[in-house]
Amino acid sequence: MSTFFYGGDYNPDQWSDEIVDLDLELFKKANINIVTLPVFSWAKFQSSDTEYHFEWFDKIINKITASGLNICMATSTAVQPAWMSHKYPEILPVDFEGRKRAFGGRVKFCPNSEIYREFASKLVTKLVERYGNNKNIKLWHVGNEYDNWCYCPKCQSEFRNWLKEKYSTLDELNRVWYTSFWGHTFYSWDEIVAPSGLSEMWNDNGRVRTNFQSISLDYARFMSDSILDCYKLEYKIIKDRFPQIPVTTNFMGFFKPLNYFKWAEFIDVISWDSYPGVGEPYFLTSMRHDLMRSLKKDRPFLLMEQTPSQTNWAPYNSCKRPGDLKLQSFQAIAHGSDSVMFFQLRRSVGACEKLHSGVIDHVGHGETRVFRECTELGDVLNKLGSQITGSIMENKTAIIFDWENWWALEYSSGPSTELFYLNEIEKYYNALHKTGAGIDFVTPDSDLSQYSLVVAPCLYLISNRNGRNIETYVKNGGKFVTSFMSGVVNETDLAYLGGYPGPLSNVLGIWVEEFDSLPKGKFNTGIPTSSFLDREYKCEMVFDIIHTLNAQSLAIYGNDYYKDLPVITKNIFGSGDAYYIGSSFEQDGIDSIIRKLSPGSDLNIEVFGNVETTLRKNSMDKLLFLLNHDECKNKIDLKNNQFQNLQTLEKHSGQLELNAKDVMVLRLLNE
Amino acid sequence: MSTFFYGGDYNPDQWSDEIVDLDLELFKKANINIVTLPVFSWAKFQSSDTEYHFEWFDKIINKITASGLNICMATSTAVQPAWMSHKYPEILPVDFEGRKRAFGGRVKFCPNSEIYREFASKLVTKLVERYGNNKNIKLWHVGNEYDNWCYCPKCQSEFRNWLKEKYSTLDELNRVWYTSFWGHTFYSWDEIVAPSGLSEMWNDNGRVRTNFQSISLDYARFMSDSILDCYKLEYKIIKDRFPQIPVTTNFMGFFKPLNYFKWAEFIDVISWDSYPGVGEPYFLTSMRHDLMRSLKKDRPFLLMEQTPSQTNWAPYNSCKRPGDLKLQSFQAIAHGSDSVMFFQLRRSVGACEKLHSGVIDHVGHGETRVFRECTELGDVLNKLGSQITGSIMENKTAIIFDWENWWALEYSSGPSTELFYLNEIEKYYNALHKTGAGIDFVTPDSDLSQYSLVVAPCLYLISNRNGRNIETYVKNGGKFVTSFMSGVVNETDLAYLGGYPGPLSNVLGIWVEEFDSLPKGKFNTGIPTSSFLDREYKCEMVFDIIHTLNAQSLAIYGNDYYKDLPVITKNIFGSGDAYYIGSSFEQDGIDSIIRKLSPGSDLNIEVFGNVETTLRKNSMDKLLFLLNHDECKNKIDLKNNQFQNLQTLEKHSGQLELNAKDVMVLRLLNE
Amino acid sequence: MSTFFYGGDYNPDQWSDEIVDLDLELFKKANINIVTLPVFSWAKFQSSDTEYHFEWFDKIINKITASGLNICMATSTAVQPAWMSHKYPEILPVDFEGRKRAFGGRVKFCPNSEIYREFASKLVTKLVERYGNNKNIKLWHVGNEYDNWCYCPKCQSEFRNWLKEKYSTLDELNRVWYTSFWGHTFYSWDEIVAPSGLSEMWNDNGRVRTNFQSISLDYARFMSDSILDCYKLEYKIIKDRFPQIPVTTNFMGFFKPLNYFKWAEFIDVISWDSYPGVGEPYFLTSMRHDLMRSLKKDRPFLLMEQTPSQTNWAPYNSCKRPGDLKLQSFQAIAHGSDSVMFFQLRRSVGACEKLHSGVIDHVGHGETRVFRECTELGDVLNKLGSQITGSIMENKTAIIFDWENWWALEYSSGPSTELFYLNEIEKYYNALHKTGAGIDFVTPDSDLSQYSLVVAPCLYLISNRNGRNIETYVKNGGKFVTSFMSGVVNETDLAYLGGYPGPLSNVLGIWVEEFDSLPKGKFNTGIPTSSFLDREYKCEMVFDIIHTLNAQSLAIYGNDYYKDLPVITKNIFGSGDAYYIGSSFEQDGIDSIIRKLSPGSDLNIEVFGNVETTLRKNSMDKLLFLLNHDECKNKIDLKNNQFQNLQTLEKHSGQLELNAKDVMVLRLLNE
Repeated sequence: MSTFFYGGDYNPDQWSDEIVDLDLELFKKANINIVTLPVFSWAKFQSSDTEYHFEWFDKIINKITASGLNICMATSTAVQPAWMSHKYPEILPVDFEGRKRAFGGRVKFCPNSEIYREFASKLVTKLVERYGNNKNIKLWHVGNEYDNWCYCPKCQSEFRNWLKEKYSTLDELNRVWYTSFWGHTFYSWDEIVAPSGLSEMWNDNGRVRTNFQSISLDYARFMSDSILDCYKLEYKIIKDRFPQIPVTTNFMGFFKPLNYFKWAEFIDVISWDSYPGVGEPYFLTSMRHDLMRSLKKDRPFLLMEQTPSQTNWAPYNSCKRPGDLKLQSFQAIAHGSDSVMFFQLRRSVGACEKLHSGVIDHVGHGETRVFRECTELGDVLNKLGSQITGSIMENKTAIIFDWENWWALEYSSGPSTELFYLNEIEKYYNALHKTGAGIDFVTPDSDLSQYSLVVAPCLYLISNRNGRNIETYVKNGGKFVTSFMSGVVNETDLAYLGGYPGPLSNVLGIWVEEFDSLPKGKFNTGIPTSSFLDREYKCEMVFDIIHTLNAQSLAIYGNDYYKDLPVITKNIFGSGDAYYIGSSFEQDGIDSIIRKLSPGSDLNIEVFGNVETTLRKNSMDKLLFLLNHDECKNKIDLKNNQFQNLQTLEKHSGQLELNAKDVMVLRLLNE
Repeated sequence: MSTFFYGGDYNPDQWSDEIVDLDLELFKKANINIVTLPVFSWAKFQSSDTEYHFEWFDKIINKITASGLNICMATSTAVQPAWMSHKYPEILPVDFEGRKRAFGGRVKFCPNSEIYREFASKLVTKLVERYGNNKNIKLWHVGNEYDNWCYCPKCQSEFRNWLKEKYSTLDELNRVWYTSFWGHTFYSWDEIVAPSGLSEMWNDNGRVRTNFQSISLDYARFMSDSILDCYKLEYKIIKDRFPQIPVTTNFMGFFKPLNYFKWAEFIDVISWDSYPGVGEPYFLTSMRHDLMRSLKKDRPFLLMEQTPSQTNWAPYNSCKRPGDLKLQSFQAIAHGSDSVMFFQLRRSVGACEKLHSGVIDHVGHGETRVFRECTELGDVLNKLGSQITGSIMENKTAIIFDWENWWALEYSSGPSTELFYLNEIEKYYNALHKTGAGIDFVTPDSDLSQYSLVVAPCLYLISNRNGRNIETYVKNGGKFVTSFMSGVVNETDLAYLGGYPGPLSNVLGIWVEEFDSLPKGKFNTGIPTSSFLDREYKCEMVFDIIHTLNAQSLAIYGNDYYKDLPVITKNIFGSGDAYYIGSSFEQDGIDSIIRKLSPGSDLNIEVFGNVETTLRKNSMDKLLFLLNHDECKNKIDLKNNQFQNLQTLEKHSGQLELNAKDVMVLRLLNE
Repeated sequence: MSTFFYGGDYNPDQWSDEIVDLDLELFKKANINIVTLPVFSWAKFQSSDTEYHFEWFDKIINKITASGLNICMATSTAVQPAWMSHKYPEILPVDFEGRKRAFGGRVKFCPNSEIYREFASKLVTKLVERYGNNKNIKLWHVGNEYDNWCYCPKCQSEFRNWLKEKYSTLDELNRVWYTSFWGHTFYSWDEIVAPSGLSEMWNDNGRVRTNFQSISLDYARFMSDSILDCYKLEYKIIKDRFPQIPVTTNFMGFFKPLNYFKWAEFIDVISWDSYPGVGEPYFLTSMRHDLMRSLKKDRPFLLMEQTPSQTNWAPYNSCKRPGDLKLQSFQAIAHGSDSVMFFQLRRSVGACEKLHSGVIDHVGHGETRVFRECTELGDVLNKLGSQITGSIMENKTAIIFDWENWWALEYSSGPSTELFYLNEIEKYYNALHKTGAGIDFVTPDSDLSQYSLVVAPCLYLISNRNGRNIETYVKNGGKFVTSFMSGVVNETDLAYLGGYPGPLSNVLGIWVEEFDSLPKGKFNTGIPTSSFLDREYKCEMVFDIIHTLNAQSLAIYGNDYYKDLPVITKNIFGSGDAYYIGSSFEQDGIDSIIRKLSPGSDLNIEVFGNVETTLRKNSMDKLLFLLNHDECKNKIDLKNNQFQNLQTLEKHSGQLELNAKDVMVLRLLNE
């Protein structure tokens, strides 16, 4: 592919032939080159156990093929037909509170339903057979935004099988689940029930809590695996016949229910749906792109969905302001996307998404602001595609992000209800991002050797094996940073004996005796005891009481009974060094710490204001992306570097100006 | 009737003979002339499928009849007996979350239960036969505060029948419900389930949301109809035997679950229960009275319930302050009521309403502040009744209020979670009310020809037919005002293609390209571009981006990317003109707009402070009501008009003073 | 016993032999002399209907016995085994919302389950037989923190039996439940269902509400009784064999679901679990100790659980600051405890309490701050035990606290959602506590003759018999204080006719005509009309409108329509006097009132700052406890009293200084 995919979700089955013809004209006008379909057509394809109907879609796909559009071929398995739900109620899930669902919504099927799996497989087989040879199909799109944890009897029975497979014996399960606590010893697999609102868990003002972290953690793994199995079933059917066509499913960024790192193994190209929140800082969108890209670092990802303007499901659905569309589209590209795709190409007339914007609006013509911006963007993408697509990122800093740690940390009971993994990840990402560093996300067992800095906020759950992985990284010269509440439990959520931070004790050279916690609004401070920290900063929520063994103290607490005890430590270990940040510092404090440690951008350039820079590389070129997120002009100092503007072909060095919300892509000439 | 009904709910079955005798004395003392009963006595009347017991009630009704009191005869069908719920569990409803209820509370029966309907009919038949000839019965009171949406299997099956009746074919249902969205196509009526918390809907912090607006909208219609069928069953039984006695059921003002405009056809006299909130502005009570009166504009309504002092069910139940009772009672009369009735005449001893005030308190005598105020009020009503009752209102301004639009607008997903229909209705009512105009509520298909001004805030759902109704009204010289988010969907909640405001485009002469939305606390402004608006005003929540076609711009946005685009437009259409208010303005802004358009009071008088004025008319007289809602004296300038005070017979013109919280009724002498 | 019990919950079954041996060493080091076990081992003891396993516990108990530790022998019945829940699902409860629970959590069994009761009895019988003769067992500990209301069919059927027993006839039940209200008349016992979220009740933002207070009140009584029956079953088994060993179960302070006064009859020694909230004022902990002590005033109680440092289940789990442990332990002793016991002696490795502190932490040695503080405390307790244990308190002031009133008042519908019984109890306790008075809690039918002052805030529910009890107390010279909303309903929650405060009218000499209520944030004031109140104070929430009959007015309202009417009254009655406080005054106001009435401390001493004083007595001695709750030194003026310090043997009189957070126990020498 030497062009960006530009297009998105299209539902021609909702429209008359005349309107579809008009749409195809408008797509051409807007430089659109790909349509995703049919995402939700199972019910139209199949009307009973044995009756299938494809003629209506033949017509549509022929028309689309004739118009020269690429096709992102969806499998339509995200919503099972109503008749199927009616005839086979087992397909309907049971929710966390124990309620059996009736037919409705989407992605509302039990992932372990045999009926679902059988019918989904049959449908996908038929789609592959009938349409697989269509040359315009450039991508298969399995399901849609998978999200369907279930607590039905079938899931409970499959959970028991999954546990048998994992633990072999009940003795081992009783040990790992720590069932001697509260007398929960199991004598038969049949006694095990799913952890839910009816058994071990409860919803505490939006935070889901549990009595038994190990059980809930295993159910999270099991559910992520069960749903992945649904995906893999379809994946295999497609790959068996058309191994050369990439297969994907659309992810949702930091989506807690599914361990996307585990899923990524079975995804040929990562794709995801980006919906920045109204008023959110832009670095959060960059962070999500970086996570998605990092799932498969050796290749670009795809922006599968974004909205042309407003969404419909948020509390407040603002229109995208003029320029936002281009800026956010290039933000995706700057972080590694080879596509810009929309939900939805034409705005539907009924149901909830009729108030969600589309490239073509209800008014039905191209004379709208949104359509014009889409057209202009398509034109730019058209021109730049061959020079950018295929390039990747090679970064020197990484953040360890682990879904299992996310689950375990937030299932933990104590020390603070304010402790959210993503908040801590965001703070460190924000600080790194400000230094201009390109950032990968990695897992605790990733090969870390390419990085000069690895940051692992709140690495609460960590195996001994992963502890050794980090030790090796530091011994060989790496810089490692972790923060409070790290090294507390092993991979089955059992606490390490012998002192925290468990398997990280050696590399960090410390012992954490207590984790104090204070209510929201109460603070301590970190006071520098070396040049490492430039001034005193506030810290809050959790306060580790640290004893240095081999480490040195870089900053100490300013208050409370642990006043003067270390809050930031550094341990020289082999050729590297390891830092421990014992509390949740205010953003400025984390910025100060990270500035000392980050390698920054690969290029010696300087930016002013909220200008974001990233680098994509291919075998030939280094491409510098400049994105001005401010509402005013900003300066960039390219210094002695020589660049060529991909669009204007102009050459640049030294000082440069970038308009409000504008974007520039520069090829590095010297080096 | 040439006197006010004065009295209310009475439960003599809760009391000993001695206390009932005492009560009848006290009623006389308090000038009470009507009692409502038996509202909740089904269980006493019927102890098994076949056993009925009326003797106890014979005694009571004889005693009441002997005392000369009028009777508002209730049918007791609001609570089915416990034994019936036990023997026939199908009578018990299933709630929105799918939970089957046990016996308890009130109005907790499935409206489609055949058992309920059969037994209710039998009971009412017996009551009519046994007591119908009692000459003191002046009114029949069916059920009580109907409010019982249900999601049980029977309701679901009746919903399917209702749909078959409405749509005839599944093709039509699939089209209208837009089931191609999210693959919801139905192949058999049996596949359809009720939209509830188990299927398409969910409760989002108190705001009920849905995936499929059309489905939920139809279920709302179906439920309102189902419950109406229960009422009609009883209505018919009574009218068949006693066609001359009016039949009612007590309404609850702006009560979302039931489309009272549709119900009103089967109500002989509208009656309702008014419970102003603690600290609420008084115009809200006026607004509710006006809605209730407007359900049957050609006759007075009845105030069926109000509390003598404090309620028990609110978060904070303040006592009515001295004078409140008279003022609020006359507020009802001023807006068209021919009664002042209480819940409850004697305060019950047990269960939740024992902390709800009554005319006679637990202390059991008349030496209480509340009893004294009731007595004084009864005396005044006694004197004025013959001069006021029977008179009606003839207003020149109307607000379009549509239950179907209420449901549809608040089921909509986007653009803002802050968008509530009543808030917008209230703002415009408040502004109109301040101008002294008498205000009717009408539906979108009402004959509008009598009005000089019709206001239709947020007319989101509107049929083409109703669009033509409004066009005709304006063409013939009417003034029409509507606001943002209007003309978006048709009567089945499908968006209009070709540009908003759909069927109102022609009469308004505009095209609305986008509906922007901003979070709570963010504002834009409207800046005058003509003399129409007197200054700049803040606006919020939703911001329509308007293109004038034939219309002219009266005010423009002050900020954002649509700065300088129109926010208020006016279109001259035929002999009338039509205004569009593109955002949610602060109250002062709406006041300013409405002052320009309202015909104001029919009489040329001027009031100061919070003095409310209304006009009732009969064939002979115009009656001016003056209500001083302030805690201080206020002036009124009657100008050259000559009036006679109904109570004192004094004549007035020119300047007049009204005491704090005082009330005056004046007959216009000249004209 | 002439020493404090010092130790707590220990779960050796969770640990290897080596670790248990190490623990026993560490216990010795820390001066620990008692362990509580096995609290949650039912599943380990019993693996099927017939298979029991005690050998593993024999080993443990032998080891513990050999080490010389005392044993608090637990019965392990708080969690039934998983296999039992699986085989006999009837054992699993149904919750308030009607959901059948699956196995999980703890204390999650139906209290009326016959299976549960049968198996629990068998287990306890076996434990008693096998271990009862062990001389180290000093106490039996039944269940654990009972808390299991249930709404299952069995409970509903037992509820009907309980009602038959109580009311004999349905006529009486219909009368008392006031079922004529809302037509709820029952004709058969079978028609009665439990009041729950499916029938008469609902959860209103955390406040549980009901339509029928009498029904809900009876269900509360029934549930407290049902659970007590479970306890009594075990109690009897133990006492039958070992009548000389005291039996207890651990209470939880002001725990609403169980009427502990009724339970106390079957508890040999009261024990409870004290977990002061982070940032809470210390008087609340004193108040809870005083309630627990008052359940059996003639003997000391036991502090069964407290945390060595942080908990895990609170929103914010702060570590106990240095010194807190000693101070809080002596606070329990100062209020009558003869033990200081912990949850948990060793911190568990898995499940939710792994983040709850223990005397021995995960690090596994004694070199922690917490272990050191525990050791020092053990040393002090060791030295002082023989001089303190066995002594009791003899107080002159009492607060009436009644579980039935708690239930009834908070089930009441109106007048204010802000009305919470404990808030009012706390205000008066706080005021009394500041005067240095020792405070007992009593019930409305306690013998009050020993008290010079009895305070009964919001005595909403009171029987005529109890009214006479209070009359007698005052007539004989007592001082009685009650507050707004008192004397409203009888013991079946039926309002008193003839004027509030019902049976207290005579003794108080007043008639309360209305209970006004204002929203949160609105205030009235009380203005002194005598020297009783020293200045004007704010009052809020509820405002009783009072007419003095025989009483005199001490203060009047400053505002509103009852301005100048009494808000505080005093009635001289026989040799005593009775005060009525007609609104909820700010704390300073209540302090001022109580200062006038409280007898204060038994000793003529003066303290400064937050120094708490209490007196324990035995046949020989009066022991003065001084607890400095401030973070700074404070003075105490012992005046002419002569004391000897129990620890240093130093003699003291006159001025004394107590260090921050320090504690002193002095024996009175003169008197």
